[in-house]
Amino acid sequence: MNIQHYYTINKQSPVPLYFQIKETMIALIKNNTYKISEKLPTELEFCEALDISRPTIRQAFQALEKEGYIERKKAKGTFVTSPKVDGFFFQKLNSFNEEMRQLHLTPSTKVLKQEIIEADEVLADSLQIKIHNKVLHLQRLRYANEEIMVYVNTYVPISYAPSLLEYDFSKTDASLYEVFRINNTPIAYVDRVVEALNAPSHLAKLLEIKKNDAIYSITTQAYNEQGIIQEYSIAHYRGDRNKFSLRLLQK
Amino acid sequence: MNIQHYYTINKQSPVPLYFQIKETMIALIKNNTYKISEKLPTELEFCEALDISRPTIRQAFQALEKEGYIERKKAKGTFVTSPKVDGFFFQKLNSFNEEMRQLHLTPSTKVLKQEIIEADEVLADSLQIKIHNKVLHLQRLRYANEEIMVYVNTYVPISYAPSLLEYDFSKTDASLYEVFRINNTPIAYVDRVVEALNAPSHLAKLLEIKKNDAIYSITTQAYNEQGIIQEYSIAHYRGDRNKFSLRLLQK
Repeated sequence: MNIQHYYTINKQSPVPLYFQIKETMIALIKNNTYKISEKLPTELEFCEALDISRPTIRQAFQALEKEGYIERKKAKGTFVTSPKVDGFFFQKLNSFNEEMRQLHLTPSTKVLKQEIIEADEVLADSLQIKIHNKVLHLQRLRYANEEIMVYVNTYVPISYAPSLLEYDFSKTDASLYEVFRINNTPIAYVDRVVEALNAPSHLAKLLEIKKNDAIYSITTQAYNEQGIIQEYSIAHYRGDRNKFSLRLLQK
Repeated sequence: MNIQHYYTINKQSPVPLYFQIKETMIALIKNNTYKISEKLPTELEFCEALDISRPTIRQAFQALEKEGYIERKKAKGTFVTSPKVDGFFFQKLNSFNEEMRQLHLTPSTKVLKQEIIEADEVLADSLQIKIHNKVLHLQRLRYANEEIMVYVNTYVPISYAPSLLEYDFSKTDASLYEVFRINNTPIAYVDRVVEALNAPSHLAKLLEIKKNDAIYSITTQAYNEQGIIQEYSIAHYRGDRNKFSLRLLQK
C-alpha cells in the first residue's frame, strides 16, 4: 500500500502527530482498507513515507495496541486484530445474546450437547444436590459476528428444567434465565468466580486458539429466590477476544 | 512417605472414597505434612497403597486441582500449590492491605518507584489531563504472606497528590484512597477493565512466573465526586495465585 496516499498528516496542527496517525489507522481498519489479520507496514516504512520520527510511530502503535486494534508479533510484524468485545458480565445479569446485541454484534450459538445426565460427586457438590440426581447438561459454543467467544457447560437440576430438554438454545433470542422466569422460578442472584489460566489443548481446540493462550474460566452458581442453586456453569472465554468492564461505587 | 500411615479410609462409609482421600489430603496440606511445592505420590502409588481404583484417586486429584490445592504437571507429577487468593476486587472498593487482612493473609508492599513524571500522550489520555502535566507515579510490588500477588503502576495528577510524594506506601496500613479521603477529595467510584493475557517476559520476571503464564491486567480509573479522574492504575495479577469472586443481583 502507498502510505502517503492514505495518511494525510498535518505537522502544523496542535493535534499530536502520533494521534493523527492513530486515528487514521483506526478509520482505515473500520472502513476495511486494512483487513483483520492483515500485516501493517513496518515502523521504518511509516517513518520514511511520512517523514516522522521513530518514537512518534512507535507511540501510535503502542496506543493502537493498547486499544486492541493491532497486535505486534515478535520478529513477524504488526497485524490488525479486531478489538476485544467489552462485556459487562461482571456488572449486570444479562444474557449473552442480549449483551452482544447491545454491543451491536450478532450473537449465535452452536449447541453441542443437550442431555440428561446423572450428577457425579463433583457436580453434586457444585449444585448442592445428591449424587446420581438427574441434571440437564447443556454444552454450547457462542459466537459474536461468527467469531468464537466462549465455550460454556451449563448444569440445571432436572426439577428446574422441565421444558429445557426440548428448548431451542440455538435461537438468537434464547435465554435460560428467561425460561426460568416464565417457569416461575426466576434467578435472584448469582455468584461468579473468575480465573485466568493457560488454555489446555482440548479448550484451545474448541476456542480456536493456540495451546497455553490465556483464557478466562468463569464459574457461576445461580440462586433462586429460595436461595437454592438452580444453575451451575463453567464458561471458558477467549482472552484475546474478551475484556470485562465494571463500575464500583464507594459505599 | 508411607501412604497407609496417613490415609485412613473407610470403604463402608457412605462418604465417597474420593471425598475421604481429598479431605485427608487437604488436612495434610493444611497441617504442613505436605509442604508447598512438594511432589505427591503418583496415582498408581495411591491405588496400590489404599487398594482403590484408578478413577477414584483420579477424581480426588481432579477435585483437589479444581480447588487449587494441587497442580498436575505433564510428565513431571503432581505438586502441592497454595490455594489461590480469593479477592473481591470486582465487588468492593477495598484497599489491597484491607482485603488481604480480611482473608487472614499478611500483606506487604515493596515500593519500586515514587516519583514525579510528565504525562506523555497515552497517560494524558488515560487521566484526561494535558500532555506534560505533572503526575505522581507510584510503582509497587504487593505480597500476601511474602508471596508476590500483583505489580501495580499508579498515576495521580499532581494537584491531587500534594502529600503523596513523601507518603510511606510500604506501611502495612498504607492506603491511597484513605489519603484521598483525608485530603477531602475522596474517590466516589471507579471503572475497571479486566483482561486475561500471557505474561510478556518483563512482567513474568517481576511476578516471578514463567513467560506466557496467564495473568490478569486490571486497569482502573478512579473518579472523585466531581467526576474528575483522580487516579489511573494498571495492575498485573498473577493468574496462578489469584481468583476473583463477585455476586450479581437480579435488578
